[in-house]
Amino acid sequence: MARTELLDTPFVIIDLDKTERNVARMQRIATEAGVSLRPHAKTHKMPQFAQMQINAGAVGVTVAKLGEAEAMVAGGIRDILIAYPIVGQAKLERLSALAGQSSLVVAVDSEEAARGISDAVFRAGVSVGMLVEVDCGFCRVGVPTGEPALELARIVAGLPGVRFEGVLTFAGQSYDADSEDALRRIGEEEGRIAAETARLLETNGLPAKRVSCGSTPSSPYAARVPGVTEVRPGTYIFGDLMQVGIGAHKLDDCALTVKVTIVSRPGPGRAVVDAGTKVFTSDGGDSRIGTGRGYVLGHPGIRVAWLTEEHGMLELSAEDETLRVGDTLEIVPVHCCAVVNMVDEVAVVRGNEVVAVWPVAGRGKSK
Amino acid sequence: MARTELLDTPFVIIDLDKTERNVARMQRIATEAGVSLRPHAKTHKMPQFAQMQINAGAVGVTVAKLGEAEAMVAGGIRDILIAYPIVGQAKLERLSALAGQSSLVVAVDSEEAARGISDAVFRAGVSVGMLVEVDCGFCRVGVPTGEPALELARIVAGLPGVRFEGVLTFAGQSYDADSEDALRRIGEEEGRIAAETARLLETNGLPAKRVSCGSTPSSPYAARVPGVTEVRPGTYIFGDLMQVGIGAHKLDDCALTVKVTIVSRPGPGRAVVDAGTKVFTSDGGDSRIGTGRGYVLGHPGIRVAWLTEEHGMLELSAEDETLRVGDTLEIVPVHCCAVVNMVDEVAVVRGNEVVAVWPVAGRGKSK
Repeated sequence: MARTELLDTPFVIIDLDKTERNVARMQRIATEAGVSLRPHAKTHKMPQFAQMQINAGAVGVTVAKLGEAEAMVAGGIRDILIAYPIVGQAKLERLSALAGQSSLVVAVDSEEAARGISDAVFRAGVSVGMLVEVDCGFCRVGVPTGEPALELARIVAGLPGVRFEGVLTFAGQSYDADSEDALRRIGEEEGRIAAETARLLETNGLPAKRVSCGSTPSSPYAARVPGVTEVRPGTYIFGDLMQVGIGAHKLDDCALTVKVTIVSRPGPGRAVVDAGTKVFTSDGGDSRIGTGRGYVLGHPGIRVAWLTEEHGMLELSAEDETLRVGDTLEIVPVHCCAVVNMVDEVAVVRGNEVVAVWPVAGRGKSK
Repeated sequence: MARTELLDTPFVIIDLDKTERNVARMQRIATEAGVSLRPHAKTHKMPQFAQMQINAGAVGVTVAKLGEAEAMVAGGIRDILIAYPIVGQAKLERLSALAGQSSLVVAVDSEEAARGISDAVFRAGVSVGMLVEVDCGFCRVGVPTGEPALELARIVAGLPGVRFEGVLTFAGQSYDADSEDALRRIGEEEGRIAAETARLLETNGLPAKRVSCGSTPSSPYAARVPGVTEVRPGTYIFGDLMQVGIGAHKLDDCALTVKVTIVSRPGPGRAVVDAGTKVFTSDGGDSRIGTGRGYVLGHPGIRVAWLTEEHGMLELSAEDETLRVGDTLEIVPVHCCAVVNMVDEVAVVRGNEVVAVWPVAGRGKSK
């Protein structure tokens, strides 16, 4: 099936050549820095891409939610870090069941979460690894470095059913970086906080064999900080305008697009396509590259001006006035992780050929 | 099953009592104004709620996408307005198939779309009704009123396989209204443009028996304009903070909430819950009522300060400091239509009891 024919729109298209290059590039960065790569699967939510990353050298994957972990295990992926505190009886039972089928590590930032997990897995006769999540300035979750991290690590190390394995950080503030210097500072700071925390724990008799840092923009910098053992970038596999804006991805390397159809030409300079926020989402607002809510492949003069739920409003440059109702376009989104989560399946293409349509196994698995 | 127990989080909860009151209220508004109510099903995407609206007096439903129409027909709803131009061969074949099973009306704003639909349904030996979409100031789709509307209506009226039925407008600018006066102006203007266009067509021998106006905030005003025959509000069935902010819905009448669990208490005044933009979406940003990205039922002092993909960050008031990891909360979202589209199923509750879990049949049906 040809890429630009037959696929009804809106359809998410993933370019395999670009994806493989992105996978190889981040693997090279990790390998050269001497750290493990454990990509965050929240971006693709598909075991097929996880397997591609593992085949290229990744040690396993990261997920945010237990439901994503279940989708990965069902798809044959068996080494999973859940970078999220698992809380609540229903989830603890699911976690225990999953721990019987795979190698699981869970990040926690509270005694309550740690004890809940320990109780559940111990009772089920299984075990999981555990990382202490340390805040490195994003102020989302995580205990402060220093005494609070040490205190939580001591508790974790004493719990039945769990193995204390180290520390985890996530420098989400990298998404606000406005220069390569800013990115470097954030990544190096993340790595430093993670590594220093690990050394503190080791000094206190708690060997932290894993020191895991996150985020696509900061990972290349965090990876080079001595003491860091693992990075967890996610978005790099496809890339999007948010990453392009940050300077962490090249526009030409963006592997995920949304194929859309022009459904209206309400006036000169205006076209409307059949995808709005229910495909592109409202994440990230306008891109930093000046093309609004997306970038239309082959039409650099088009601005994706605004979106409603099912409509995408384009402002056309003079040279795009020939576009007509029924024409199709491919649009690079602002936030690819969000787009994947909106659709039940994606078309995987090699050059101009659709080679597969894959279900998004982890779509909507926020539980 | 009790509402606050056993449902794993994040889980979308829909309060039936409130929903039924919302349904009855809008039906009363339409009935008193002497117009038909054809609710937009993009909000709930579930045939069960469409049936509830029809049982209360609605004449059928509106949808944006063909995939939503298919989900409605599969669920037994047979009178559907697709307020969207259907373009492209694959969709035209699906439209023709659906027209054989239901009463369909499609809105168009271009000759290309109208001819494509006519060709397809005529060849298939079926027929659909057709409305001419007229722009009433939102500048999204729609032909201008006056000569362009007349010209398109003439074309439609001459096409085989389609029945010209009237005009359709959508005053999306009502979402930016900042007072009841502004809403009234927008709604009355929408109704006036729709009705005047219809009169123009009738004067020219094209009886426009349907004059259909849209949007929850503007419908009550548009409904009272002489000549308008139908309104298509959607969000009113559940309500959300966007509608509350506009003044089109009461906070106490918001029927849809997201049940979440506190997964972290990283510091005083801070709590993190297990739902972020992958449930709440980024639509609408902060609500206008001062509680950020959501409103926590029973905790008016909490601000839903910011969201990442799977985390919701709460700022707590002093009286909420007793909240602990593992506690659950219910949050009214900013944009309910967007939230329904993120989840595969919802819990339907009556008071404190979960009476059903319904699949979101139209979820992700943007094709």
